[in-house]
Amino acid sequence: MIVKGEQLRKFATDVLTGLGVPDDHAAITADTLVEADLRGVHTHGINYLPIYARRLMAGGINTKPHIRLISDTPTTALLDGDSGLGQVVGLQAMELGIGKAHKGGVGLIGVRNSNHFGAAAYYSIAAAREGMIGFAMSNIGPTMAPWGGTTPCYGNNPISYAVPAPETPIVLDVATSVAALGKIIDAAATGDSIPLGWACDKKGHATQDPNAALEGMLLPVGGHKGYGIALLIDILSGVLSGGAFGQEVNNLEPYTEPGRVGHFFAAINVSSFIPIELFERRIAEMVRALKSSELAEGVTRVYVPGEPEYEKWKASGQRISLPDDVWQALNRLATEIGVTPVLEPISETL
Amino acid sequence: MIVKGEQLRKFATDVLTGLGVPDDHAAITADTLVEADLRGVHTHGINYLPIYARRLMAGGINTKPHIRLISDTPTTALLDGDSGLGQVVGLQAMELGIGKAHKGGVGLIGVRNSNHFGAAAYYSIAAAREGMIGFAMSNIGPTMAPWGGTTPCYGNNPISYAVPAPETPIVLDVATSVAALGKIIDAAATGDSIPLGWACDKKGHATQDPNAALEGMLLPVGGHKGYGIALLIDILSGVLSGGAFGQEVNNLEPYTEPGRVGHFFAAINVSSFIPIELFERRIAEMVRALKSSELAEGVTRVYVPGEPEYEKWKASGQRISLPDDVWQALNRLATEIGVTPVLEPISETL
Repeated sequence: MIVKGEQLRKFATDVLTGLGVPDDHAAITADTLVEADLRGVHTHGINYLPIYARRLMAGGINTKPHIRLISDTPTTALLDGDSGLGQVVGLQAMELGIGKAHKGGVGLIGVRNSNHFGAAAYYSIAAAREGMIGFAMSNIGPTMAPWGGTTPCYGNNPISYAVPAPETPIVLDVATSVAALGKIIDAAATGDSIPLGWACDKKGHATQDPNAALEGMLLPVGGHKGYGIALLIDILSGVLSGGAFGQEVNNLEPYTEPGRVGHFFAAINVSSFIPIELFERRIAEMVRALKSSELAEGVTRVYVPGEPEYEKWKASGQRISLPDDVWQALNRLATEIGVTPVLEPISETL
Repeated sequence: MIVKGEQLRKFATDVLTGLGVPDDHAAITADTLVEADLRGVHTHGINYLPIYARRLMAGGINTKPHIRLISDTPTTALLDGDSGLGQVVGLQAMELGIGKAHKGGVGLIGVRNSNHFGAAAYYSIAAAREGMIGFAMSNIGPTMAPWGGTTPCYGNNPISYAVPAPETPIVLDVATSVAALGKIIDAAATGDSIPLGWACDKKGHATQDPNAALEGMLLPVGGHKGYGIALLIDILSGVLSGGAFGQEVNNLEPYTEPGRVGHFFAAINVSSFIPIELFERRIAEMVRALKSSELAEGVTRVYVPGEPEYEKWKASGQRISLPDDVWQALNRLATEIGVTPVLEPISETL
C-alpha cells in the first residue's frame, strides 16, 4: 500500500496526540519516523509507531515529560529526559548543542532517562544543516558480549555523523554490530538462515540459525574494534550522562518500564576552523575524487556515505510503500485508539 | 636483543639531536616510540626511528619547525605543524586541547602540515590522565578505495580514544582497515599468504597474495562502515584543518617530501558533566560487569580495550626485546650519524 509522507505524518501525529502526547511532541516524533521511511530506512520508520504507542499506553514512555537541565555550561549540558519520547528529548538536546556551537564553537550534550530515538541521522543532519559537523549516538539494551565473553552486557549502540556539503550532508548512521538486529528478526520470521559472522548462539558458538542468534548475541563489527566503539558510545551516553548503562538499559521492553536510554550529541561549528564556504568547496573536491575512482567489477558508481538514502528520498516523490504487516498494524492501532479516518492508501503500487 | 626502555629513549634522543632536532623535541619523539614498544605495540615503536631519521636527513621532516597557531578560540584551535615531527606537533596540539578543556569543558584542535605521529594512543592517554575523555586521529597516505571502487584515495586512518578509569585508562587505538598494513608487509617478507578479507589486488579482486595486496588496497573494517569512519577522520584531520586530504597526503614517502599529514584532537572534561570520582566509580562498575561475563570456549578472561597493552607495559620491567632486523637498522643508523656508543643489549633473551 502506498501512502503520502504528509498523510503518514498526520496519521502518526493523530495517534500520538490521541494518547495524550502534546501536539508539538507528536509532530516531531511523526516527522522522524516518516523521514526515515522516505530515506528508505524502513527499519527505523513508521514500523516503530505501534511499539511507541504501546509503550505510551503501558507507561514505559511518559506522554508529558518534564525535560530537565541538570547541568549547563557554555559548551556542555546534561539533560534528564524524564522518560519522554526519545525523539522529543533527542531533538531538544541536539538543538541545545547547535545553539552552543553557534556561540562557542562546540556543543556537547549528554542525555539520561530517555527512550528509543529512532534513526540517529535525524539529529546529526539537523546539525549539518546549520553548518556544523554533527554527531548523535545512543545506548540501547544489551545485545553484544565483551570480546571473548558470552554474556550480552552492552548494546550494538548506533552512531551517526553528518558533515555539511553543497547539496546534501555526508551522513553515516550505523550500528556497531556486523548486522542489524532487524535483519536477524526478519530471517527468523521467514525461516531463512543468516550468514556466518553475524551472531553467536548463547554459548558463543558461531551460528547461522536466526533463532539461536536471537537467544545469543550479535557480533561487533570488526571484532575488538566494534567492541571498543560500542563501549565508547555507552560510556558517553550512559556513564558520562549519569544515566543507565550496560545491562541497566531497557530500551523498548518491557513496555511498562522506562527505556532508561542515554544519548550523546555533539555539534562542531565548522566556521571556528575554516570558513564554511571553503569547507564545502573542499568537501566537494573530496567527493569528486572519490567518485573518480576506478570501479570494481559489477559496480556502476561509487557512493559517498548517506548518498543512497538521499537518492531514495529524492526519488520517493514523498510517497512511501508500506509492507502489509506494517499497514495492518497501523490500522489496528488506529481503530484501537479511535483515530478517524484510518490510513487510506493512495494506490496499491508505486 | 634486550635493551632497557631508558637506554633506548636516550639512544633515540641522541640520534634525533644528532640530526639537529632540539633536545625537548627529540625527547618527546623518543618517548612516544619507546612507550609504544613497552606497551607491546611494536608496529609503532622504535622501528620508526630509522624512517624518521632518513626523512629528517632528506628534508621531508623539518628539524626545527615553527609551529604556528592559525586560529584560536576558547574551545578550538588550528595549528600548522610546519612539517615538524608529528609527535612534537601532536603533543603540543593535545596539550592545547587539554588546557582549553580544563577552562571551558572541551578543546578541539585541528592540525595541518604535520608528519607521522606514531601511536595515536599516546595523545588520547595524555588527556585521560587529566580527567578528560581524549581523542586522537590522523589521516595518512591513500591505502583504501571508496566502497565499490578500486582507486586508493584515502588512508586506513587511525583513531584512538582514552577514558579515565581508576587504575589505567580504557584505550582503543585502531586503524580503520580490517588489518594493519604492517601485517601485510610482514607476510610479504616471510612469503606467507594473508587471510581473505584483508585486501584486494589493484583490480579490486579479493587476494591472499600479500604482494598483490600491496599493489592494490586494504579493505575497510566492516565494509561501508569503515569506509565512512575513515572518511570522517580525513574530513576532521584534512578538510576541516585546511590541510591536505585524500591523495594529497604523502605521510612517510618520498623521504624528501613533507608528509602533509593532518591530525584532529579532542579533550572532553568529564567534570563538566559529572564529578570525575563518580565517573571513575561508574567506569569501574562497567568494567566489573564486562569481566563478569561468561567466557567463550577456550577463553580464560575478558579484557577491556587497552588492558592487554597495559599488562604488557607492567610486565615489561621497562625492558624491550628488539627483533634482529630492527637491532641492526638502529646500529647502522647510529654508526652513520656517529652516535656513540651504539646501542648495547643488556642480554640476548628476556
